[in-house]
Amino acid sequence: MSQPKVSAYRWVPPFAQGLVRDLRVRWALEEAGIAYEERLIGLSDQKSEEYLRLQPFGQVPTFEDGEMAMFESGAIVLHIAEQSEALMPAHPVGRAQTKTWMFAALNSVEPPITMLNMLDLQPAEVRERAKEIRAAVVERVQGRLDRLAAFLGGREHLVANRFTAADLLMTTVLRALRNTDLVGKMPSIEAYRLRCEARPAFQKALAAQMAPFAANAPPNA
Amino acid sequence: MSQPKVSAYRWVPPFAQGLVRDLRVRWALEEAGIAYEERLIGLSDQKSEEYLRLQPFGQVPTFEDGEMAMFESGAIVLHIAEQSEALMPAHPVGRAQTKTWMFAALNSVEPPITMLNMLDLQPAEVRERAKEIRAAVVERVQGRLDRLAAFLGGREHLVANRFTAADLLMTTVLRALRNTDLVGKMPSIEAYRLRCEARPAFQKALAAQMAPFAANAPPNA
Repeated sequence: MSQPKVSAYRWVPPFAQGLVRDLRVRWALEEAGIAYEERLIGLSDQKSEEYLRLQPFGQVPTFEDGEMAMFESGAIVLHIAEQSEALMPAHPVGRAQTKTWMFAALNSVEPPITMLNMLDLQPAEVRERAKEIRAAVVERVQGRLDRLAAFLGGREHLVANRFTAADLLMTTVLRALRNTDLVGKMPSIEAYRLRCEARPAFQKALAAQMAPFAANAPPNA
Repeated sequence: MSQPKVSAYRWVPPFAQGLVRDLRVRWALEEAGIAYEERLIGLSDQKSEEYLRLQPFGQVPTFEDGEMAMFESGAIVLHIAEQSEALMPAHPVGRAQTKTWMFAALNSVEPPITMLNMLDLQPAEVRERAKEIRAAVVERVQGRLDRLAAFLGGREHLVANRFTAADLLMTTVLRALRNTDLVGKMPSIEAYRLRCEARPAFQKALAAQMAPFAANAPPNA
């Protein structure tokens, strides 16, 4: 039987290394014990007709498995989780809660974090003029993290007292704050992130994403 | 058998009327032919301990159905779609594509639109200083719409030549651009939005969201 194929970049600049969203799919496949192949693409292949047929927004990752061709890391992780109890409990209530928190990670927590990162990548003088906007966005991110911390309380995981696909997605969302002190100053969320990242499947997935970056670094990078 | 219960606001300011996310769940339930009850809350109830137990981020909607208690409109729509062919085809490939586009709507298309609306709600002088940021965000939204239009081409719906939960979510995302000309100037996307909004289930859901706003408008609104 052929293995599923996941698209990823040959190389990205350091600020994105370890954050590209194929990490989510690699991690889910490692947790589920499913071997996979890579479809490594260059930043320019994103706009090729061939790749846009697979991924209409030109993003990474895609997931090809027999007649199945998917994109959107959240949808792919859900697809894998539906086939593996390593990522989602069998009981209907636990499944509903896992899906609830998967969407919470991607639709309630991630958007203001993406916005913050977009602001912080602007030229210095644009950032200076937009500092009130940045303050409003930080407040929004902080509000999500406060509510997440309140929910977690003494819990080790979001759902069903065990690791699920919801923790997988939430961890990758929290990682995107690594250039700020927003997670670091909240001990319970930082401990949660580190707990999830300590999983062997995460470490394997991260190493697999990073390997091509080292092999394909441009001469001046 | 008791009916599922969906939370919604008693009243919101006009800029949010017709956009609050319980609309997605109401629409999905109407398409699936499932009767439901409302749990109407005030803006202040959002922060009550009781409501935060149901919805840790204090948002609308929640969905209560027997022992099932969910939040996140995307997760709830998916949960309903998994039980109704009115929202998702039976074939595994069609199901995977539906989920792909559900996540695309909420995680690739919606975030820059939310950011744009957040910017446009800032005070005039803040907006003036942040106009380069706004231009960058508009470019990002436009990029998503361009790719969506290219994918749609002559298609009437996103997946499987029929209406699915993916169209439901995408339509609600596009509606959030109603204070801009970004959708209006793209005829194929505007036609797509209008085609989906013409469905009787959408019209019923919208009327149901709007009814309490009329009944509970504050004296000075």
